[in-house]
Amino acid sequence: MTITSPHNERLKEIRKLARRRARDARGRFVAEGEDLVAAAAAAGWEPAQLIAAAGSGLAGEEIEPALLDGVSGLGSGTRTIGVYEQRWHAPAGPLCVALWGVGDPGNVGAILRSALAFGAASVALGPGCADPYGPKAVRASMGAVFAVPVARVAAVDELPGERVALVARGGEPLAGAPGGHVTLLVGAERAGLPPAVVAACDRATHIPIAADSLNAAMAATVALYELTRAPRMAGA
Amino acid sequence: MTITSPHNERLKEIRKLARRRARDARGRFVAEGEDLVAAAAAAGWEPAQLIAAAGSGLAGEEIEPALLDGVSGLGSGTRTIGVYEQRWHAPAGPLCVALWGVGDPGNVGAILRSALAFGAASVALGPGCADPYGPKAVRASMGAVFAVPVARVAAVDELPGERVALVARGGEPLAGAPGGHVTLLVGAERAGLPPAVVAACDRATHIPIAADSLNAAMAATVALYELTRAPRMAGA
Repeated sequence: MTITSPHNERLKEIRKLARRRARDARGRFVAEGEDLVAAAAAAGWEPAQLIAAAGSGLAGEEIEPALLDGVSGLGSGTRTIGVYEQRWHAPAGPLCVALWGVGDPGNVGAILRSALAFGAASVALGPGCADPYGPKAVRASMGAVFAVPVARVAAVDELPGERVALVARGGEPLAGAPGGHVTLLVGAERAGLPPAVVAACDRATHIPIAADSLNAAMAATVALYELTRAPRMAGA
Repeated sequence: MTITSPHNERLKEIRKLARRRARDARGRFVAEGEDLVAAAAAAGWEPAQLIAAAGSGLAGEEIEPALLDGVSGLGSGTRTIGVYEQRWHAPAGPLCVALWGVGDPGNVGAILRSALAFGAASVALGPGCADPYGPKAVRASMGAVFAVPVARVAAVDELPGERVALVARGGEPLAGAPGGHVTLLVGAERAGLPPAVVAACDRATHIPIAADSLNAAMAATVALYELTRAPRMAGA
């Protein structure tokens, strides 16, 4: 049974899930394209629904390609869309990345990707962050959203291990930051972490740079590298 | 004399410079918006021409806002546009970043930004790279294109210092890469550096990561951090 009507209930749901409010209410989200759908399957996520362009040979309920284009957030050319149940976890160590006020979904997705690359155990989203299950974040994560557990937190004391605030200036250089059980806290590009959040952390660290010119995703990636590289000079 | 005609020669030039061929032929490029124009001025770049929305109070030849919107690559809301002469330098050390086949202008711009942050002396663009003076690269550089000397190269032997190829697998871990006079070579996200380029380098290095999941700009940024951090464990 190929889907031939734009009023089909499955298509209606996909359209609704473009909005954060609908995602929050339904606890679902959308992943577009073969690469993301494959990343979900590789990570053991069963789609709640899966549609695929008629004639594409891809798994899923068949749909007329023009209708698929109509619900696609990427425009024409998408061949498959999956809908998944959101999964929210408790923030976990030994290495957790916590974001505060990182409102750009591209940055949230990029940080998920780096968290996966460097083996972080979870990414915790504090107040003011973009939805990791929004379409731009999912896309920017390149599928890492399916592989790295995400958490929602409201306060620093929910975070595991030693809490290390990444700041533009102050604290100690990154190379001296502790390894082991750590949550790395990262703020928004211009505003940085709120002072009360920095104050609630166990220590602050900065990336020694010549120009104040790294965005949140770049800074988080460098810090993840530093915290996971070996050998590290303890306390140096 | 406010510019009131879309056929004005200055506007014609700005429109043409959106295309790479025109930029290459004229040796000029465009920077849009107050932040970039200010970054140019701060770095000592005199605009070849500078236009500003009538009534904005900004420096430059006044232009009707609707006409400015018409030549803007960003759409409406731009208040100033500068045209600058391109500057090409010889690749210089002690720390040079060389790109091969990095065709995404956003990545080229982001790498310029990181090169500035970590104090690289120059960024060299090898075959197949996006134009650092294209509008997307200029924007992604956040003004770093005015602060970091850029070079064009055709072969590895034009690059200064010890040549270190950044590869996905193989070579030694990044932490063991040499400091001092180094050119770091970075390839495209999926393809990586061509084997002949890696072979022409003095050594290869990789970022130890769990998932093969860093884009060219992220990888270059991590490597710049590693090559410039102190203290480093020599040869570790």
